[in-house]
Amino acid sequence: MASSKLYNDRGGQSPLVAVCMGSDTDLATLRPGLELLDTMEIPYEVHITSAHRTPQYMLDFGRAAAGRGFKVIIAAAGGAAHLPGMIASETILPVIGVPVKAKALDGLDSLMSIVSMPRGVPVATVGIGNSVNAAVLAARIVGTSDEKAAKWVAAHLKQMDHDNMEKERRLQDEGWLKYRKLDE
Amino acid sequence: MASSKLYNDRGGQSPLVAVCMGSDTDLATLRPGLELLDTMEIPYEVHITSAHRTPQYMLDFGRAAAGRGFKVIIAAAGGAAHLPGMIASETILPVIGVPVKAKALDGLDSLMSIVSMPRGVPVATVGIGNSVNAAVLAARIVGTSDEKAAKWVAAHLKQMDHDNMEKERRLQDEGWLKYRKLDE
Amino acid sequence: MASSKLYNDRGGQSPLVAVCMGSDTDLATLRPGLELLDTMEIPYEVHITSAHRTPQYMLDFGRAAAGRGFKVIIAAAGGAAHLPGMIASETILPVIGVPVKAKALDGLDSLMSIVSMPRGVPVATVGIGNSVNAAVLAARIVGTSDEKAAKWVAAHLKQMDHDNMEKERRLQDEGWLKYRKLDE
Amino acid sequence: MASSKLYNDRGGQSPLVAVCMGSDTDLATLRPGLELLDTMEIPYEVHITSAHRTPQYMLDFGRAAAGRGFKVIIAAAGGAAHLPGMIASETILPVIGVPVKAKALDGLDSLMSIVSMPRGVPVATVGIGNSVNAAVLAARIVGTSDEKAAKWVAAHLKQMDHDNMEKERRLQDEGWLKYRKLDE
Amino acid sequence: MASSKLYNDRGGQSPLVAVCMGSDTDLATLRPGLELLDTMEIPYEVHITSAHRTPQYMLDFGRAAAGRGFKVIIAAAGGAAHLPGMIASETILPVIGVPVKAKALDGLDSLMSIVSMPRGVPVATVGIGNSVNAAVLAARIVGTSDEKAAKWVAAHLKQMDHDNMEKERRLQDEGWLKYRKLDE
Amino acid sequence: MASSKLYNDRGGQSPLVAVCMGSDTDLATLRPGLELLDTMEIPYEVHITSAHRTPQYMLDFGRAAAGRGFKVIIAAAGGAAHLPGMIASETILPVIGVPVKAKALDGLDSLMSIVSMPRGVPVATVGIGNSVNAAVLAARIVGTSDEKAAKWVAAHLKQMDHDNMEKERRLQDEGWLKYRKLDE
Amino acid sequence: MASSKLYNDRGGQSPLVAVCMGSDTDLATLRPGLELLDTMEIPYEVHITSAHRTPQYMLDFGRAAAGRGFKVIIAAAGGAAHLPGMIASETILPVIGVPVKAKALDGLDSLMSIVSMPRGVPVATVGIGNSVNAAVLAARIVGTSDEKAAKWVAAHLKQMDHDNMEKERRLQDEGWLKYRKLDE
Amino acid sequence: MASSKLYNDRGGQSPLVAVCMGSDTDLATLRPGLELLDTMEIPYEVHITSAHRTPQYMLDFGRAAAGRGFKVIIAAAGGAAHLPGMIASETILPVIGVPVKAKALDGLDSLMSIVSMPRGVPVATVGIGNSVNAAVLAARIVGTSDEKAAKWVAAHLKQMDHDNMEKERRLQDEGWLKYRKLDE
Repeated sequence: MASSKLYNDRGGQSPLVAVCMGSDTDLATLRPGLELLDTMEIPYEVHITSAHRTPQYMLDFGRAAAGRGFKVIIAAAGGAAHLPGMIASETILPVIGVPVKAKALDGLDSLMSIVSMPRGVPVATVGIGNSVNAAVLAARIVGTSDEKAAKWVAAHLKQMDHDNMEKERRLQDEGWLKYRKLDE
Repeated sequence: MASSKLYNDRGGQSPLVAVCMGSDTDLATLRPGLELLDTMEIPYEVHITSAHRTPQYMLDFGRAAAGRGFKVIIAAAGGAAHLPGMIASETILPVIGVPVKAKALDGLDSLMSIVSMPRGVPVATVGIGNSVNAAVLAARIVGTSDEKAAKWVAAHLKQMDHDNMEKERRLQDEGWLKYRKLDE
Repeated sequence: MASSKLYNDRGGQSPLVAVCMGSDTDLATLRPGLELLDTMEIPYEVHITSAHRTPQYMLDFGRAAAGRGFKVIIAAAGGAAHLPGMIASETILPVIGVPVKAKALDGLDSLMSIVSMPRGVPVATVGIGNSVNAAVLAARIVGTSDEKAAKWVAAHLKQMDHDNMEKERRLQDEGWLKYRKLDE
Repeated sequence: MASSKLYNDRGGQSPLVAVCMGSDTDLATLRPGLELLDTMEIPYEVHITSAHRTPQYMLDFGRAAAGRGFKVIIAAAGGAAHLPGMIASETILPVIGVPVKAKALDGLDSLMSIVSMPRGVPVATVGIGNSVNAAVLAARIVGTSDEKAAKWVAAHLKQMDHDNMEKERRLQDEGWLKYRKLDE
Repeated sequence: MASSKLYNDRGGQSPLVAVCMGSDTDLATLRPGLELLDTMEIPYEVHITSAHRTPQYMLDFGRAAAGRGFKVIIAAAGGAAHLPGMIASETILPVIGVPVKAKALDGLDSLMSIVSMPRGVPVATVGIGNSVNAAVLAARIVGTSDEKAAKWVAAHLKQMDHDNMEKERRLQDEGWLKYRKLDE
Repeated sequence: MASSKLYNDRGGQSPLVAVCMGSDTDLATLRPGLELLDTMEIPYEVHITSAHRTPQYMLDFGRAAAGRGFKVIIAAAGGAAHLPGMIASETILPVIGVPVKAKALDGLDSLMSIVSMPRGVPVATVGIGNSVNAAVLAARIVGTSDEKAAKWVAAHLKQMDHDNMEKERRLQDEGWLKYRKLDE
Repeated sequence: MASSKLYNDRGGQSPLVAVCMGSDTDLATLRPGLELLDTMEIPYEVHITSAHRTPQYMLDFGRAAAGRGFKVIIAAAGGAAHLPGMIASETILPVIGVPVKAKALDGLDSLMSIVSMPRGVPVATVGIGNSVNAAVLAARIVGTSDEKAAKWVAAHLKQMDHDNMEKERRLQDEGWLKYRKLDE
Repeated sequence: MASSKLYNDRGGQSPLVAVCMGSDTDLATLRPGLELLDTMEIPYEVHITSAHRTPQYMLDFGRAAAGRGFKVIIAAAGGAAHLPGMIASETILPVIGVPVKAKALDGLDSLMSIVSMPRGVPVATVGIGNSVNAAVLAARIVGTSDEKAAKWVAAHLKQMDHDNMEKERRLQDEGWLKYRKLDE
């Protein structure tokens, strides 16, 4: 395989987060989360590691992950979404699972396939299609031993509070009839 | 590992069906299916091949299965039931998945985790907890190239028809108030 | 009825797979699976055999199927999807059920109507709308006694592995921002 | 088959309701409905006509039903409950479907398999396990051309009203703390 | 209220079917069923009888229905669909319930609100949005004492069988690639 | 009907809450809520007003409720739970709906039948079987114009806070291994 | 924060209803309810009080609400919709919860997150996205001590009855084929 | 409040994990996870911090958690399970949510209330009732910066593999009929 591409290397720092997807169609779901990792300046890699099409590569990837310095793995998959759970079975790292909505069943199958793991092999499941939360959760985990990430999360919480209070203020000023969302 | 134990060897014939379970607690669910394989005299093996606790062993088992002469693999698992799908990704054999009902969600998570496989890697899913149907389906598949199995399935269909007609006759004779099921 | 049309006769070989649909509106769902059977060069027939509009024809079709040399039957149906289970009750062949998503309930009714068969009459259920997996499962079953089909499945598994690894390599080369899916 | 047993012949009147079950285990679910048919003195027959174990007998039964003088067919089945819909496809009579709760999924699969019929072949579905309502619905249908049945339904509606008002009166007299249900 | 408008009076015959809707937005769902009643030449009326906006009118309508000569009532409603069950509590006639899909929950709430009636007051529930089946079920019920309706149902079953066999023949002639649905 | 029995008359005050149930079997579900109304000393009445067995009495009850001085109506029902919504259509009072779990579907049908009301006729739905919350919600509504009820709610919130803090303290003192719940 | 904007002050009357949303994207769902509050001339305020982005502000808002003269709080939220329940834990006022449909799961998660409150802290849940019913329920609650609101609700019930009867009359006059909804 | 009780202090080390429950009835669900934390010798505290009964205490607890040296918070709650999400909104630490099965809906409400968090405030959700996985996930997170915890997880993975292979060996030796689970 080609040598892995690292994003946000923070001046040479090795990657902290591995983002895996079962299929390249999952990239659309992952995009907002990846953009957030960029914003947070947390070094990461992105990989296509299908549980069903490249099972051995996926297991090997999982097995090597802790040794390569990753702190967390984010894994997105849809339908019978085996990727997060299978990687979790081969690594000691926390694995964050992102259920991707498939054509039928409105994401329920993906959610259940990821969250109902047997005792001993947990997957930290976030909401259906919510890669942003996967990225923030990764930052919180990285932040338990990385001050920069922890500070970002703290600042982000404050920023969200501030932004919402701004919206509340504007709503009081303008009234709901005139109110327009800032990002429109 | 100890050499595998073969059931119903039909005078030296190698095993035709591999029965895998994710956990030995699944044995209770599989028992009626195993007893039926005995009845059908189809040679089989039974294995504990957890997708999450022994992932490499499971993959290796799947990879070797076709070469060892199996025609079908039956795999039972509950919750985020990854076993059937993961084995299917490493073998060219048809894999039959048996969803096992877990403590919550009434088997729905197991069913969805097994049936919603991505394109290219099918699992032949049977009803929740229905190992008998897994065994009959295995016999039907084996029967496409094994006359003995095919004959058993044909005889079984006739037998079920006959038994039900017997019950119908008895119901007409006795009336529903007196009617007692034969197997009570 | 008109004499049945055979696809991919492999130089005179009789059909191995019968593809049945409950309604001709299911043809859209079945199309990718039929195209894959063409690719795999497995001889097949396609039939409209509604459980509810032509029940006797359906039963007769099921009853005659094994004698006509089919190895597998694929049956697609939506809603109270009775076709796969009814055909399974009249044949000794393995029957693969494809749940077709209807207007309401997001395919859940079709899935449950097909998978929850009583003991003794199994249907090998694949994912909602997943006719590709029905075709691959048919190939795996045919492949238990047909070297050509078995080889195709093995090659297909390798091809999927290879294609995914190619995508992974390209993703590492291009980075996720530039990455475009090959089939776009 | 043995000649059919008729209940409540009203002095020689031919049967008006056929009660079919997919398996004799459904008798427990049907019992309250059968007892109500006895109370209503509507002549009926009870049959075991499995869609999956005796498909041809079931179809033949459905086909002959209208000619034998039945006005309604009640059909109970669980899981992939095909019986009501299959009988409906072979008769011009109204068919009432009773979903029987199976081991998993809390009756949802039975309900959906019975109610989601394709256009043109309706099944009059009642609540899960509610054979009493199947019997009352049968009486309402029979009652459209049978004065005795219509009168029973009218009297039953009045009786239920009266009984509930009695309970209401008793509740007002005794207070809820002392109130005990009459049938305890 | 204006005197009721009767459709298909068959030369002066009083109406046999009353079609009630909870809201005039349900008319879109009912339309195919009404058109079928026209085709079947069964005299019917259509009414807006909201359980929640005109409860007394609805009850009065239900109470008077049998006396006005109706044989069956079709009632369509969505969400907490109370109309079919409430009318059923005030009439001795069979009531057919048509669940209408609302904005959320994909019709599941409508289906459950209609089908799960208490013992003694049945509603004959058909599939979500399936007014065609409500009409056919009405015809089957009317047909238990009306030869014309019974004959229509019998002819319709034959016609569906014939049409499907025609499609099957055409499919065999044309092959699935060329096959086009007749109604396209 | 017998004159209604009033509980907690607060020295002659007319009833503030009417508690209605569809069937006297719902009394078991309502009991904790009734006991809480006793504790809160809010005058109330309890009635059996079945939507399906005594529809006119139910409507009349609803129609008269506001005039009789009630401030709130609590209505409990299971399955196709029409009672709360039907009463709401005949009164201007706020109606609180308590979904009662029926034999199948785990309360989901009751919940959906109560909550999915059409625009204009709301039911204030509480959790499945949660009559305690119905009583507290009634107290909150009564409390908008009744100081005693408002004070009780305020005191109850404080008491719950205090009790939980006591448990927290005890947990810290005893450790979780020794910790026993106070109400055991 | 900016001083709160009051709508419909009825000549100086303090606000009776507080409308809270978890996110300004919920404004689209709330709009019909707000417009109805305008129509009803009930003074209200609208606030953005996110449970997750401004938790302390939300709690403080809830805590102060009763003291500021509100009679009811309407709270809308989607997904893991915590806002209604959290506000309910800090106020003695009745809280009405409006589940907002999120991207997946068709509103089911929002509904369950709002309705399944623990004993002691009720939320009066209305249908998914049904802000109109939240407004009417608020009017009913306010109406228990405010004649103007009570009269509006009574008039509204009559108006709905009248409007529906008008539609019924028009339907009888025009026939269903010509019938057009008035608001088209 | 009493000073917090610390478990497994590893010779004076401050607590790494805070375990919160919404109600002391959740202790039964948490017990296996707490015992595992003991086994892993990870210092932890246990708290009762109800989102609905002690909202301010809960928020304050969340706000102080990072400063007190915790690395992870485990929060268990049932029904409208707000605790995990509310704590997550007040801390920068990763929060693990354990859905507790309530009386109805089989845990589905708890799962959805915990997992469907809005963007920006993630909860790492594990399977329904699976406190063991919460503990292991906590160990994996702690292990990203604590060698002892990381080693335990690695050893645990190996141990599970070894134990399963032992079971597999025993199964091969004894045959499935004799096989008894070791822990029986």
